Order: sequence, then C-alpha cells, then structure tokens
Amino acid sequence: MKPAFSPWLAELSEAEVEPLVLASVLLSLVVVYLAAKIGGELCARVNLPAVLGELIGGVIVGVSALHLIVFPASGGEVQSLLMNLVGMTTGQAPGDLLRVFQGESEVISVLAELGVIVLLFEIGLESDLKELIRVGPQAAVVAVVGVVAPFAAGTAGLILIFGIDTIPAVFAGAALTATSIGITAKVLAEMQQLSSREGQIIIGAAVLDDVLGIIVLAVVASLAKTGEIEILSVAYLVAGAATFLVGSIFIGRLLSPYFVMVVNQMRTRGQVIISALIFAFVLSYIAAAIQLEAILGAFAAGLILAETSKHKEIEEQISPIADMLVPIFFIVVGARTDISVLNPLNPENRAGLVIASFLVVVAVLGKVITGLAVFGQPGINRLAIGVGMIPRGEVGLVFAGVGAASGVLTESLDAAIIVMVIFTTFLAPPLLRVVFKDDEGPVSPATPAPELKTADKAGS
Amino acid sequence: MKPAFSPWLAELSEAEVEPLVLASVLLSLVVVYLAAKIGGELCARVNLPAVLGELIGGVIVGVSALHLIVFPASGGEVQSLLMNLVGMTTGQAPGDLLRVFQGESEVISVLAELGVIVLLFEIGLESDLKELIRVGPQAAVVAVVGVVAPFAAGTAGLILIFGIDTIPAVFAGAALTATSIGITAKVLAEMQQLSSREGQIIIGAAVLDDVLGIIVLAVVASLAKTGEIEILSVAYLVAGAATFLVGSIFIGRLLSPYFVMVVNQMRTRGQVIISALIFAFVLSYIAAAIQLEAILGAFAAGLILAETSKHKEIEEQISPIADMLVPIFFIVVGARTDISVLNPLNPENRAGLVIASFLVVVAVLGKVITGLAVFGQPGINRLAIGVGMIPRGEVGLVFAGVGAASGVLTESLDAAIIVMVIFTTFLAPPLLRVVFKDDEGPVSPATPAPELKTADKAGS
Repeated sequence: MKPAFSPWLAELSEAEVEPLVLASVLLSLVVVYLAAKIGGELCARVNLPAVLGELIGGVIVGVSALHLIVFPASGGEVQSLLMNLVGMTTGQAPGDLLRVFQGESEVISVLAELGVIVLLFEIGLESDLKELIRVGPQAAVVAVVGVVAPFAAGTAGLILIFGIDTIPAVFAGAALTATSIGITAKVLAEMQQLSSREGQIIIGAAVLDDVLGIIVLAVVASLAKTGEIEILSVAYLVAGAATFLVGSIFIGRLLSPYFVMVVNQMRTRGQVIISALIFAFVLSYIAAAIQLEAILGAFAAGLILAETSKHKEIEEQISPIADMLVPIFFIVVGARTDISVLNPLNPENRAGLVIASFLVVVAVLGKVITGLAVFGQPGINRLAIGVGMIPRGEVGLVFAGVGAASGVLTESLDAAIIVMVIFTTFLAPPLLRVVFKDDEGPVSPATPAPELKTADKAGS
Repeated sequence: MKPAFSPWLAELSEAEVEPLVLASVLLSLVVVYLAAKIGGELCARVNLPAVLGELIGGVIVGVSALHLIVFPASGGEVQSLLMNLVGMTTGQAPGDLLRVFQGESEVISVLAELGVIVLLFEIGLESDLKELIRVGPQAAVVAVVGVVAPFAAGTAGLILIFGIDTIPAVFAGAALTATSIGITAKVLAEMQQLSSREGQIIIGAAVLDDVLGIIVLAVVASLAKTGEIEILSVAYLVAGAATFLVGSIFIGRLLSPYFVMVVNQMRTRGQVIISALIFAFVLSYIAAAIQLEAILGAFAAGLILAETSKHKEIEEQISPIADMLVPIFFIVVGARTDISVLNPLNPENRAGLVIASFLVVVAVLGKVITGLAVFGQPGINRLAIGVGMIPRGEVGLVFAGVGAASGVLTESLDAAIIVMVIFTTFLAPPLLRVVFKDDEGPVSPATPAPELKTADKAGS
C-alpha cells in the first residue's frame, strides 16, 4: 500500500490526515446546511419550492461562486476556499491539504448519494404500489414519449439547423431524454401532490425514465467510443433492469412478512430503522452492481416496505435521517453546476448559448407534450404531468460529464447541454407550483406530505 | 490535480470510480449493520450490554477475522474481502479497486467519527448541565486520580519489574490513563443510568479525562519525538481546552435563546434537526481545529441545547440519526482491533502477554480506586464510578497507534498495550451491569433512556 499513498503525503502522515478529513467534513456540512436552509427559507418566503433555494444555495457555495464545496473530479486546477479555511484554522499550510481535500470531497459526494438514496426510499414509502401498477400503462407512455420526442427533435434539429455531426448530435439529443426524479419528487412532496394521481404517474414515469436514461446513455456512450452500438451489453442492461424492477418487488413482497417478524423479535435500540436501512441498502447495492442506479433499489425497497405494518414507524424514523442527508444532495448538484457558461459577455459562450436556446425549447416542449399522451384518465391535469418531467438535474449533468470525458462534444455543444440542464432544473420547480395551482387542490390527499408533519411539530 | 491521481487510476477513470465507491459503501454499511444487530441482539439475549455485542461483531468482520471492514491505515498488506466481493459482483478485477477501497475506507471512517459525534451530542442532550456542574468537583477528582494512579503505577512497574527503558515505559503508562467516554456512556444509556448521580459523575470525569488524555498524549508524543517536553505547546493545549469548555458553554447559553428564535421563524422541513446539527458541527469543528477532539464540541452542544425549549424535539429527531450512525462507530472500533496479539500459541506474543497481564491489573485497579476518591456523597456507588472509568476503547487504540508510529515501543510492549485495551474495553460493559445491579435501582430515573423509548415504539 505505502508507495501508492506517497504522492498525497507530502507533509502529513496518515494518522494526521484522518482528523483533518473529519474536521473538513464537519465544516463542509455546516456550509451545506447553512446554504440549504438560507436558500430554502428565502424561496419558501416568496412562495417558491424550497428545493429550488437549495439548488441555488449550492450554486452559490459551489464551483460557480464561493468555491467552498468543490470536487477534484470536475477537472482542472481546483481551488477550494474551504480547504484554505481549514488550513488557516488548523495551522496547516494549504499545500499540505491536497490529500485531506481528496478525502473530504469523497465523503461529501458519498453523503450526497446516500441523501438521494434516502430520498427515493422515502418517496417509495409514501407511494402506493397498487396505484403505481394501476397507472403503470400511462406512466410507461409518458416515459417513452418523453424519451423519443426530445431525442428525435433535438438530434434532427442539431443536424439540420446547426449542421452538427451525427455522433455529437445524437449525444446531445440523448442528454435531452433524462428526467431528474429527485427534484420532481421533492417538489411534489413539498406540495403534498405525491399521492395524487398526477403525482403517481409522474413518479412512475420518472422511475421508468431513469431506467431508459441509463440504457440511452449506455448506447450513446458505446456509440461515441467505438462508433457502433454493442447490442449485447444493451440487451444485458435492458434485461437486467426489467428483471430487477419486477424481481425485487416480487421477491421483496414475498419476504416482507419475515422482515416484520424479525423486527418484532429484536430487542435492541434502532431495530426498525436499521432493519429498513439494511433492506434498502441491499437493494440499492444490487441495483448499482448490475449497472443500474442505486436509487432504483432504494425506491423499490420503499415501495415494498410501504405495504408492511411497520411503514408508519419507518416513515417517522427515516424522516430526520432524510432531513440530514437530502439537502447535501441538492447542494452538491448545485455546487457541481458551473453557471459561468451562462455569461453572454464571454464571446466563447455565445455559440453555445444559441444552440442552448434551441435545446431548452426542445427540452421543455418535448416533455410537456408527454401529458397529452396520457389516455383513459378524464379530468387529469395533463400539463402538470408534462411539466413534472422537465427537470434534467443531476441526470443531465451525468450526460454532460460523460460527453465531455469521451471527447465527442465540442466545447460549445457541451456548454449548451449544461445550460439546458440548468434551465430545465431551475425552471421546473416554480412551474410545477403554477400548474398544480390551476387544479382544484390535491386529487387524493391521503398521505400527508412530510413538509406538513414537520411544520406541525414545529408549532407544538 | 491529474498527476496526483495517477497511481490510483490503473484502469478506472474518476467517473467510473465514484459509483463503485458508493456501491462499496452501501455494501460496507450492510455488513456493519448486520454485524451490529446480530452481535447486539445475541448479547441482549444473555443479558450483556448490546454495545459489547457490537464491538465483538466488529472484531468478527474486521482485521482479526473476516477482513470485510478493514482500513489501509492499519498498515502492511491489506486484503479486503469486501472489495473482492464488490469486484466479483460488479465485474471489476480486484486489482483495479485499490482507489475504490481507499475511498470506501475513508467514507466509513468518517461515518464512524460522525457516529461518535452524534452519540456524544445525544449524551450531552440527556445530561443536566446544572447537575454536571454540581458534581464537577467530584468528577474532577475522579478524572485526576484516574490519570495519576494508573500512570504512576504503570510506569514505575514497567521500569522496576520489567526493566523497560524510561521513555517506552512512560508511553505505556500514558496509554493507561485514557477513558473511552463513548463505550461507558452507551452502556449507561442502555441501563438508564445516564441521569443517575453516579452516571453524571462518570460522564463528567470521562469528559475531563478525554481532555487530560489529549494533553498526556501530546506530552508523551513530544517526549518520544524530541526527548523533551515542549512546555509551550502543552500550555497552549491546556489553555485551549479550558477556554473551549468554559467558553463554549458560556457563549452557547447566551446564544441559545436566539437559536430557538431562529428555529421558530423557519418554515421548511427539518428546521429543528438541521439547526441543531449546524450548532453541534460548528462546536465540533472548533474543538477539532484547536487540537481537542470533535466529540468534546458535540457534547458541549448537546449540553447547551438540553437547556432550550426545543430539547425534546431535538432528542426525538436525533434518535434515528444516532441509530443509523452510532453502530458504525462501535463496529469500526472492533474492526480496527487486531486480536491476534492475544494468541498465546504464537511464541512472539508471550513476552507481550506477560507485560499485558501486569498492564491489565494496573488498568483496572488504577481506575476502580477512583471511586474511593469521591467525597461528600454519602451512599453513592463508588465501585460503579470506578468501573465506569475502566474502558480504554478507541482512545487507548490511538495511544497504541501513535506509539507504534513513533517507533519508541518495542513490538511486545505495543502488543501488551493493545491487549490491555481489549480487556478493559470488553470487560467493562458486563462489569458495569454487575456493579449497577448491586444498587437498589436507578438513583434518579428522571429522563427515560433512549433504549426504552424505542422499545415502546416497537410494541405499538
């Protein structure tokens, strides 16, 4: 092991690094929570979704502005002001802190991922599997239209209007297909619309879209790398995704009575929440291991446990854990987004901004029309469903990241994709508010949203 | 940044490493929780403290046995079976996973540290500052006797009986002074003895002992390094510790009404727990930055918030977070402990085991007598106080680690210290049960222990 460590250990030994990593993580969490709460509270006061404030808070502390929460993976020279602060307060020279910075960003990244895993687990717990299966056909249509329409219109437009080569155009078109289930689900939960029919269709479609997105990304990435599509690995992905989603829910429902039995037998503290977390993390690990996303496993685990007699207790106990971890995710999404590509004064950005305005239009329209595809649901808010599919969020950033790394995207096209992600992500939460307001109120406000529960508590 | 990464990146790019680190962390957490719950439940069934089961569970999954939860910092060739498992299930060659393993252990270490921070925050919340100040003089006497007695007896015995040189003898003597506040506090909480007078004296003494231990370690480490004591840096530590403990509580109490005011103004979800965590993490960071331990800051934060009107809510919401994070700490303490030094069949261990039996006797007696030093408390359970100070736990492991790294300790003396730490850590929880059983029951069972709260919930 030793030689591998050497480049990091200019001055500090491993025993000295560990407490510094911990201290940096503590300071990062303080920054994350302050940004999340200040952003969230300000947005809540002007009647915007709190999650939008968290994203903006993340942008402010991230790579675009304050450089407090930054990640070495974003490439190039990274200057972390947070590490300078740690250096100043602990008396370490900033240059010695490279290894500490690496550890700190690793930990914050994983905490953010655990945050979105816990969020999707919570969303699963608050969803109704039967309702989800019932709206399944509608959700599937919404997901497929929401992938095909923006992909076809985007790719064709880039080739025909902007004269971009086929492979980069396909890549940019693929980036238009993503939907960020995290952002949409959080806004729906804040508005207590998660259990409405529209909410369940959106969640179902977003989950399917996540699977489709992974498949599209795999196809496009292999196309970008080798110039052709590896049919076998795509078939493996599709089969794996289908088997996982159906299999985990089927086997999970068979096993869930044993889950309740084991939990009832346990006598030590935390038996319910630890058992639930074991279940959620096992499914998340399996989903991650078969190249799907961990959040799909967490969502499936939530859906299964929602049907057990323990679901109230689990919901109650996961709630503070979600409060602690979920903001880290939204702050990190904001912090990783480099909004300097939006500056029209920089001549290098202009070409990108022109393409970007085209992509934004296609991205919004391509998802809004999905609501029209919903059949057999008279009186449903079609616009709300379409708008719910708009935010690209972290999934869009992954497309941009993979595209930039593979080298198929020109700088202006890469920037255009990032601009499209920023616009759809930041516009969708307030838009969702507006389109749901047109409704007469929640269609089936059975489960109270977590937002309310905490507000009640605070008043007591 | 790039060149610094190269040794890790034999095969995997940074974009490929991140999901693998997340997957490894998920699998590690599953292993941690299974070990903690199986160990804890088995111990609870034979009427032993659950935390002992978690420590033993940690030993079983750690470096001593299954090699599932291991850390590169423990030195030498490390074989992580967990990483092999990750390699197998994700199709990566184990050799490519070095960088992933590094990330995974970093994250698990920090989660363990966050666990003990949350534990001490919870202990602080359940403690009574006024009672703690009232028993302060007794706690101080217990702490000082518990440092001086084992240090003097241990060092003298090693020099006079075993003919060991002064500096290594002083180092081993210093390792005898530590007290693991985490283990003692957890056992007290499990027995609902945290708010008893004995419990508060033990907690107060253990906190002071933690500060004394840091000072002793600094003195001994500088002695080992340069052969002399750096008076200035020791004076700085002492002044810093005193200023921090008094100052944080004084300023914290002045600011706590504003804390309640701000929380009451907030409208978004998680306002109570996030505000409490910001407070706890800021104090933890300050404590870590001035070379004290982060847990001292967390304890101080808990003490201060315990006096606000929000303390019930904070206690309720920190409880599932503690359930999630605290077991990671105890499993990691167990996993880092190499019990192979206990094997008497290995001739290399024998010299160490002879010294170890001497150290264990001094370690136990040196702390047990501290109960005798308590004055002006008629009818108090002196034996319980003494036994409460016995476990060296993770603090003892730090002494052994620093000693081994500085090279002043011979292999057998290093092994003897580890054996002493293992014995005191694993014997104290059952011993505490026995000595508290002799009592007529809890002296002042005002606050229900968290153990009970969860048990109630499970029954509902």
